[in-house]
Formats: sequence, C-alpha cells, structure tokens
Amino acid sequence: MLISKRRIDEFDKLYRTNFINSLSGFKSANLIGTISKEGKTNLAIFSSVIHVGANPPMMGFLMRPVSVERHTYSNIKETGYFTINHIIKEIFKQAHQTSARYEKDVSEFDACGLTPEYTQTIKAPYVKESKIKIGCRFVEENQIKTNDTIFIVGEILEVIAPDDALMNDGYVDIEKAGTIVINGLDSYHDTKRIARLSYAKPGVEPKEI
Amino acid sequence: MLISKRRIDEFDKLYRTNFINSLSGFKSANLIGTISKEGKTNLAIFSSVIHVGANPPMMGFLMRPVSVERHTYSNIKETGYFTINHIIKEIFKQAHQTSARYEKDVSEFDACGLTPEYTQTIKAPYVKESKIKIGCRFVEENQIKTNDTIFIVGEILEVIAPDDALMNDGYVDIEKAGTIVINGLDSYHDTKRIARLSYAKPGVEPKEI
Repeated sequence: MLISKRRIDEFDKLYRTNFINSLSGFKSANLIGTISKEGKTNLAIFSSVIHVGANPPMMGFLMRPVSVERHTYSNIKETGYFTINHIIKEIFKQAHQTSARYEKDVSEFDACGLTPEYTQTIKAPYVKESKIKIGCRFVEENQIKTNDTIFIVGEILEVIAPDDALMNDGYVDIEKAGTIVINGLDSYHDTKRIARLSYAKPGVEPKEI
Repeated sequence: MLISKRRIDEFDKLYRTNFINSLSGFKSANLIGTISKEGKTNLAIFSSVIHVGANPPMMGFLMRPVSVERHTYSNIKETGYFTINHIIKEIFKQAHQTSARYEKDVSEFDACGLTPEYTQTIKAPYVKESKIKIGCRFVEENQIKTNDTIFIVGEILEVIAPDDALMNDGYVDIEKAGTIVINGLDSYHDTKRIARLSYAKPGVEPKEI
C-alpha cells in the first residue's frame, strides 16, 4: 500500500510515532552513559548512534530537543565525555527501562539494575554488563533546524571489546559479541549473518568472504 | 581488551576503517535513489539512515565529504528529492554492488540489476525489488565540522509498505517485510525478534507485548 503525507498527518500521535520510528530500517541498540559534575550517573537508551568517521575515529547520535530536561545532554556539556555501550540480549529489558522518565537525582544504573564501571581515560560510566563499549570525548553538536533535534558528535578515545570479536582485518564481529538491534520504539531483535561480501568494484560480482 | 586512541591511530587505514565502522552497533541497510536534472538515475547503499522526527515525519542520513564526486548529493541538490529503500536478503549482493565507483553516466540500477519505479509525488526512482520504501523531499543539510561529512535531512512525503507489515498500533514490522541489517562495511544479517516491550515507566517492570 501507498501511504501519503496527508494520511500520515491524520494519524493519531502515538500511531504516527510508532509508524515513523519503524521506517529508517533497523536501528542500533546502545546505552549512553554520562555523569554530572556532582558525580551523579545517568544512563539512557539510544537507537540513533551512527558511524561518523574512521580518521579521526568518530561517532554521532541524534537527541530530541533540549526544551525538556535531558540529563544525557547536560552531563555531556558539563563533563565533555560519554560512553556508548552495545545492548546485548541478557540486558534488553533493563536497557529498555532506562527510557522511563526518572528524576535527575535517580541514577538509571540503580533503578534499572545495571552496573557502572570506569576507566582512567573517560569521565563517564560504562555499563559493566555490555561487551562492546566505546569511550568518547564530546566534539561538536549540530542542531537540525526543522525540529530542534541535536546531532552530537564525539571522538573515540578508547574501545573495549571481547578478544575473540576482533577479526584479522579489523572487523569487529558484534553479532558474536551478542549485540542486538531495534525496530521502532520497542522491538528488540537478534541477528544471524547472511554473509560478508568483498569490496565492490565496477564489473566484478561481489564474493562472499 | 581495551584499545586506546593511540593504538587506533597506529592501525593501518583499511584495518581502522573496518574497526571503527563496526562499532556503532548494527546499521540500517538502505538504498537511496535519486535522479539528475538530465534524468540519469543513481542508486547508492547507505548504512547511516536514522529517524529524525515523527511530526513532521523526517529521516536523515550522513554522507561523506563532497570533495570527491557524490552523485547522490548533487542529484538531491538538483531535484530536491530522494527515496529510501530497505534492503532485503534477495537483493543484498546487488545492493552491495552499488558501492562500486561507477562513472556518473552509468546508472547503478542497470549496472547492478535493480529496477527503478516511480510514483506521481516523488521526483526520484524507488527500487521495485524493495518492500518498504520512503519518498522524501530534501529539507536541510548540516555539515559536521570535524570531518566535513554532511547530515542530510528529508521530509517524508509518502511510504510504500506491504499491507501485512503494518500493525494495529502503527508499528511497521520490518522483519516480516524482510529488511536486513549491516555490521561494519560488508557484513549482512537477518534478524529474529526477541520481544516487543511495553512503554517504560519508573518503578514498573517492562512487559512483553
């Protein structure tokens, strides 16, 4: 079926939110860890983390407008650091629960049953239960003018990953590490590899590698 | 293991590219269709499409710097339109092949064996073989200052989806529609639902819905 903009505009709010949130394709499943200058930890689920660049190594994610209170945003601006922690199946309910609207004095680590963990480099908590974790330094923010969302960019300062997930060519097998994926606002999925394909060149059929 | 920024900086270029591209979590698998003002179609695989907002309905994706020739970018700027087409297992090799560096006068539709398809609203080709397709009007671009990548934002003008993928609450079951997912630069994966979870509220355990 073809659904026009006019029909989308007529959807009720929650229906439209479910609908549009499903359309980007599958979404990355991450917990972003931060800490306030008073030392209060915060943890929030984000499905918008994307690769920004490899040299310098950078990650980005989109945040909703800061007109409402956004602890992740204010902590990043205060300390300059955040962590990205892949969600695995074993903690998907705890991860989802971090999206509840807790007060600023409540740490989602405590409220949702996850464990903060620190390194010397990053002034923000990692999630101990995650297998793949990335420590970032805030670099820049870009405001999307149409709806006031903010695209946050961070430089990768360190990566924590299981030894057996790192392949000979630098590829990190995140499926092997148990990373899961999101559809829409609330659906969590395991993955199963179809294949890796060789670098594409004009006139040459890609091979499974 | 913990891998520091210093060690990442010492990786060779391809190794680092594979490594960093794997770290965001799983990535959405989409083909973006455009057309030049002369009517030449273009199709390119993108793993950076994300949800930007539901009201107005918007999508975004990150492009590499335009210092090298980027047909997708120039076509969007010329016509103001692009399509987002979910990649399904049946076309993952053709989709991957669109990343080869074809000349501007070669259409990836022809070169890779995919079929352009049009509607009355969108001045850009859809991929006939895709099941879920989104027609967008270009709205704004935001340059990431650190590495000159560009975050392109479009307003959704129409959506094409199989009837049986649209659920009662607006959720689109993209797994049912066969949408696949990407890890790194070249690994393609099927998905399998773990569960959908109820809206999270403080003090209430999320339920499977």
